[in-house]
Amino acid sequence: MPHARVALAQIDTRVGDVAANAQAVLAWARRAADAGADVVVFPEMTLTGYPIEDLALRASFRRGAEEALQRTAAALAEGGLGDLAVLVGTVGERSVTPVHEPHAPEGPRRPTNQAVLLQHGEVQARYNKHHLPNYGVFDEYRIFAPGGDLMVIDVRGRRVGVVICEDIWQDGGPVSQMDEAEVSLLVVLNASPYEEGKGHQRVELAARRAHEVEAPVAYVNLVGAQDDLVFDGGSFVIATDGRVLTSAPQFEEHLLVWDLLDDDDAPATGELARTLDPDEEVYQALVAGLRGYVRKNGFRSVLLGLSGGIDSALVAAIAADAIGGENVVGVSMPSVWSSDHSKDDAEDLAKRIGADYRVQPIKPMVDAFDGELALEGIAAENLQARIRGVILMAISNREGHLVIAPGNKSELATGYTTIYDAGSIGGFAPIKDVDKSRVWQLARWRNNAALDAGELPPIPESSITKPPSAELRPGQVDQDSLPPYDLLDEVLDAYVENAEGRPELLARGFDPAIVDKVLALVDRAEWKRRQYPLGTKVTALAFGRDRRLPITTAWREA
Amino acid sequence: MPHARVALAQIDTRVGDVAANAQAVLAWARRAADAGADVVVFPEMTLTGYPIEDLALRASFRRGAEEALQRTAAALAEGGLGDLAVLVGTVGERSVTPVHEPHAPEGPRRPTNQAVLLQHGEVQARYNKHHLPNYGVFDEYRIFAPGGDLMVIDVRGRRVGVVICEDIWQDGGPVSQMDEAEVSLLVVLNASPYEEGKGHQRVELAARRAHEVEAPVAYVNLVGAQDDLVFDGGSFVIATDGRVLTSAPQFEEHLLVWDLLDDDDAPATGELARTLDPDEEVYQALVAGLRGYVRKNGFRSVLLGLSGGIDSALVAAIAADAIGGENVVGVSMPSVWSSDHSKDDAEDLAKRIGADYRVQPIKPMVDAFDGELALEGIAAENLQARIRGVILMAISNREGHLVIAPGNKSELATGYTTIYDAGSIGGFAPIKDVDKSRVWQLARWRNNAALDAGELPPIPESSITKPPSAELRPGQVDQDSLPPYDLLDEVLDAYVENAEGRPELLARGFDPAIVDKVLALVDRAEWKRRQYPLGTKVTALAFGRDRRLPITTAWREA
Repeated sequence: MPHARVALAQIDTRVGDVAANAQAVLAWARRAADAGADVVVFPEMTLTGYPIEDLALRASFRRGAEEALQRTAAALAEGGLGDLAVLVGTVGERSVTPVHEPHAPEGPRRPTNQAVLLQHGEVQARYNKHHLPNYGVFDEYRIFAPGGDLMVIDVRGRRVGVVICEDIWQDGGPVSQMDEAEVSLLVVLNASPYEEGKGHQRVELAARRAHEVEAPVAYVNLVGAQDDLVFDGGSFVIATDGRVLTSAPQFEEHLLVWDLLDDDDAPATGELARTLDPDEEVYQALVAGLRGYVRKNGFRSVLLGLSGGIDSALVAAIAADAIGGENVVGVSMPSVWSSDHSKDDAEDLAKRIGADYRVQPIKPMVDAFDGELALEGIAAENLQARIRGVILMAISNREGHLVIAPGNKSELATGYTTIYDAGSIGGFAPIKDVDKSRVWQLARWRNNAALDAGELPPIPESSITKPPSAELRPGQVDQDSLPPYDLLDEVLDAYVENAEGRPELLARGFDPAIVDKVLALVDRAEWKRRQYPLGTKVTALAFGRDRRLPITTAWREA
Repeated sequence: MPHARVALAQIDTRVGDVAANAQAVLAWARRAADAGADVVVFPEMTLTGYPIEDLALRASFRRGAEEALQRTAAALAEGGLGDLAVLVGTVGERSVTPVHEPHAPEGPRRPTNQAVLLQHGEVQARYNKHHLPNYGVFDEYRIFAPGGDLMVIDVRGRRVGVVICEDIWQDGGPVSQMDEAEVSLLVVLNASPYEEGKGHQRVELAARRAHEVEAPVAYVNLVGAQDDLVFDGGSFVIATDGRVLTSAPQFEEHLLVWDLLDDDDAPATGELARTLDPDEEVYQALVAGLRGYVRKNGFRSVLLGLSGGIDSALVAAIAADAIGGENVVGVSMPSVWSSDHSKDDAEDLAKRIGADYRVQPIKPMVDAFDGELALEGIAAENLQARIRGVILMAISNREGHLVIAPGNKSELATGYTTIYDAGSIGGFAPIKDVDKSRVWQLARWRNNAALDAGELPPIPESSITKPPSAELRPGQVDQDSLPPYDLLDEVLDAYVENAEGRPELLARGFDPAIVDKVLALVDRAEWKRRQYPLGTKVTALAFGRDRRLPITTAWREA
């Protein structure tokens, strides 16, 4: 029996840009054909981008996607690629299950999340995803109806099963039927968002499925960023014994080509991507998240306040890696309480990354407000912080930069932020899912990576080593108000990411006074988190659609 | 056969406050017993409040609810109410279906949305809601597992079926089996959020179900506010022929008592609540929404900017009706472009509603920024608006008022707002789901209601009649930038609420140039809407969790 050559096209799609996504399918199908592939597999919802959220419920959007699908089928054949089997994802117009919607009693019917085989100029077959994730960041049960049929296609006389993403995460379902279908290969179209350590989970899961269906599993994942999600790629083929036969790098587009040999032969192996260490992986995810947001929203440059502190320094370094230091505008906005080392560190950082650096003291504005309003304590501290926010928005309005917010996850969790200040405003918050302990770790990793490459470390050493302070009053440091960050982050991890209650936290040995303080801070800060800009999810549970809690709640852990 | 007396306890619960909700159950059960009731029915998820969102996934929360349930059963008996059948809602600990969660591979199992019969000091029976709404504002499939069994309880020898909310909105399911169960009454525990016209839908639906099961339907609804949702009560009992036999008022707690007579007798009738006209109903919903947010979050007063325009005037009137004019702080923040009539109208309004009125000119702050930053055009206009935001936040920080944002739905839709200005900041946005045309209508309705009651109309006539303007430059009016509001609101209604595409909009006869302009504005403003404060939903589709769209999207209607 002839070998079947399989290409996994790990591409970066754009939500809503069906024309550009269709062009990408044509271009990558050609690359696959040039590499001798018999079949090329694209990520989940290739033509529409992922996730499309409530765009799925709009008839005009579904029509647009279907037209692009039909045009793509024709264009592939016209381009001489008619023999190539092309598996793409899209939104299916077909309605399966009625959904109740009070404002539309006759009800629109939900569409499906679909994989489509394009070949010989036509749509040859359609598969509707069975399992619809509706937890964490996912709302697929809201917008899709589940499918019920199997898809097994023929590639050079070999039976190849096709499923979509969540279908392999659930026991039972289409995968459990693939065994009887006697497939020689199972391909999976995915849009699996990045979170730390998820690559291992995917590989373990795929190994289990390969064992179940007694055939290799080819896993193709989306790459690139969409709002708060980063898709890290890392596509692979895995054997029935759990060996990774070939794998693509993370965070970049890639065509992974692999040969399906005879069922009785030892499986073919191919290129293997370098495994990133955990800090490098998270850092690359943050770079990809910011870069994707900037580019896909039509910006060319970003603007942020540089305080000399570690958060803004790390964010500036990420921004420089994402879009080039020359496209980063950093503004130092010293107050009378700002230390000299803060101003020096901010300037040093800007020089190291090649940013457009500016200084705008806030004293004249503070004085103007002070002359009109009698403010003391927190109100006076917050005023300074918010004046910085107004300055950044004014520069953004004047020059068109995207304002980015450098707040970290520990601050966001505890509400240790001034809402509408320079740390909270703008369109994107690159490190909002990175806790303070990790901020320091990533800064050290980035500097070490520079040293290893013989480059100047981007982040001034003193920004890493000095005690964190908002510098809104003389001598202020974060630990006046918060427990030490290493301890705080442990408590937050248990309470926020693991949803543990007070008894479980005490059983871990945390001091009850600290637990009570942290829980109260977290619960009270929900309203601020709701108004915070989007930012890249890198943990198993990010603030945002991953953790949906009421603002108004009297529940107190006791 | 003896009559069975049924009490519907339309109460206002608090999310997370299981102790207070349990106390309310005791107090209202006593009132029901005093009225001679055999059974008292409470709203959906009585003990936990509704909606609890991801609190459902927290084991400590479910334990707290279960303990409150058991204590309530005991306390009812100890209080001499052991014979009364008490139907309450809560979160069920019982896990039915496994749910996949990547960060918890062994998986917590989802709990259920439960109705529980308490009698003789014990939990007698539990019913798990079958149909889990997962559209619009609802995410129940995310947090609950569906039930599969029926609940039919005995009340004085009569068979009474019990279901929960969405169970009657779906054809099939438990209601379709109640016919065979030969019930004499179907009771429905609800937490059905208000939207305009929904009362009629509920009655029509309940009538259909009464016809199906050949028995009256007793519909008890939650009342009060929770974040963006208002529950309007309006509980009722409906006969098999579709006649409303008795009904409770909207927007207030109420005990509705009704006798279930012999199946062969003509059904009993009772009190009938006055029907509100549409403007009155929406206005009352807005009052209830703001009042609930203020009280349940522990505030005593609200703070807003008074521009003299219609939006802030309506919001101030709503606030005065919600918490008393003496608890409303209104700040006039004139610029050099503010007209005399604006300042006069703001002051006049404040006097009419008895607000704490203050004047804080912004010129000194504007001058300070102008001296430091060279700003022109939009950047200079936005600066003035944001300085007002900083002033309000400073006063709030100093004095502890809740800042409320007076932006309306037309502005929010088109992004005709300055992000972080006095119209966009704060904790709550009372009219964010009210379009501009409706703002004027509600203002007129409120003034007429005052005249009818022989009171001073709260809103100055000139705030209603003058052309709307942000007054950020000389002679500016909204219609320099936007189509006339009556036309704009029609296009928005079709595009946003009905999710129609461009072809459908053109088929309605709208001018293509206006359609293209409005659609582009709406699509581009998603990032601003995401950072906007919560506000009361009153339409079938409010911005927020009702309409989930990506910020990053290249989809353009064509």
